[in-house]
Amino acid sequence: MQVVVPFAAESPKTRLEPVLSPDERSTLARAMLDDVLEAILETGHEPTVVSTAPLDAAASVLAADSVSVEIDDRSLTAAVDARLPAPGDDPVAVVMADLALATPTALKALFTSVADVAIAPGRGGGTNALVVSHPEFSVDYHGGSYLDHCAIAREVDATLETVDSFRLATDVDEPTDLVEILIHGEGRAPARLRSFGFELDTDAGRVAVSRR
Amino acid sequence: MQVVVPFAAESPKTRLEPVLSPDERSTLARAMLDDVLEAILETGHEPTVVSTAPLDAAASVLAADSVSVEIDDRSLTAAVDARLPAPGDDPVAVVMADLALATPTALKALFTSVADVAIAPGRGGGTNALVVSHPEFSVDYHGGSYLDHCAIAREVDATLETVDSFRLATDVDEPTDLVEILIHGEGRAPARLRSFGFELDTDAGRVAVSRR
Repeated sequence: MQVVVPFAAESPKTRLEPVLSPDERSTLARAMLDDVLEAILETGHEPTVVSTAPLDAAASVLAADSVSVEIDDRSLTAAVDARLPAPGDDPVAVVMADLALATPTALKALFTSVADVAIAPGRGGGTNALVVSHPEFSVDYHGGSYLDHCAIAREVDATLETVDSFRLATDVDEPTDLVEILIHGEGRAPARLRSFGFELDTDAGRVAVSRR
Repeated sequence: MQVVVPFAAESPKTRLEPVLSPDERSTLARAMLDDVLEAILETGHEPTVVSTAPLDAAASVLAADSVSVEIDDRSLTAAVDARLPAPGDDPVAVVMADLALATPTALKALFTSVADVAIAPGRGGGTNALVVSHPEFSVDYHGGSYLDHCAIAREVDATLETVDSFRLATDVDEPTDLVEILIHGEGRAPARLRSFGFELDTDAGRVAVSRR
């Protein structure tokens, strides 16, 4: 199985602007990418990062022999679609680079699906990760992609599984998402956030983050 | 195994005030309770609703012989703590009444845990459902209860499992949570929301709800 990890190299994570500087957003995005790559490697697969621009591999999981990087500046939909399986090809998994809570166990539940299309939905109707083995399936990441992908699978008569995982449902886009990294994260991303001065604030009903 | 479903009967779901009237909030809360009870019944267990006030059982799952209702106007923590297992007792599960996406499959993954304490965390560090078989464990639902419950389990030397489920992680507290009901819900709650005029708005990046 191919495992593709799309990565937006330029000005990543703009919705975190209220709480993080551009440099910090970039550092956090790379830490999350490293955490995701490491979780994929632990499942026994060799990920391919598809980046919109070249990345400095120094001091990162990108430097590992088992990780490859391809540059593709097309839209997410076009770059992923170009890598989906043709008839006879192995299945292709697509895992978003901001799934900071991804673990090998959670990914394995997705990777071992026997459905033609298996989707781990994100909060708000996104598609955080999927595995495609049906040659006629295509992606469309615009708007509410989870429901769109379910519809596309039905159109091409592909069997469909929705994988129920909080870890895979949690992509990091907005300031409130940082809470989940500090509570459940285990890798570089929570360490980076703590080095930026973030800590949990448990006075509120739902836990919040505060910054020293 | 006992399955306890705490329910706040008076002015439920106040954080939905910006988008729902008091009557609508109450109707939605009862619809979610019914959906949760039905999912529990389908796992083969007979739930006990612990309500802060008497509930009208007409036209609801509460009228089923296999569902009991107890009135307890204490705080959530006190009402649950009083029902946790004493030495020699069967395990006790506690499932929040607003887990509108709960399915029998997701609940079974929790109910069949062999750990002394199994927790399905909610978004924002809450405790959405748990199963307790250790007689010294106690609950504290104030603030970030997931981390507190993990700490309490460690203090009493209980083995701990965290159950990774998006469906169980999704409690319905805030307007953006309604999106998840419309995308993934299968029972009364999505039907009620649609009857109130809500529909998915897929123009945004994350799917939103709009109201006719």
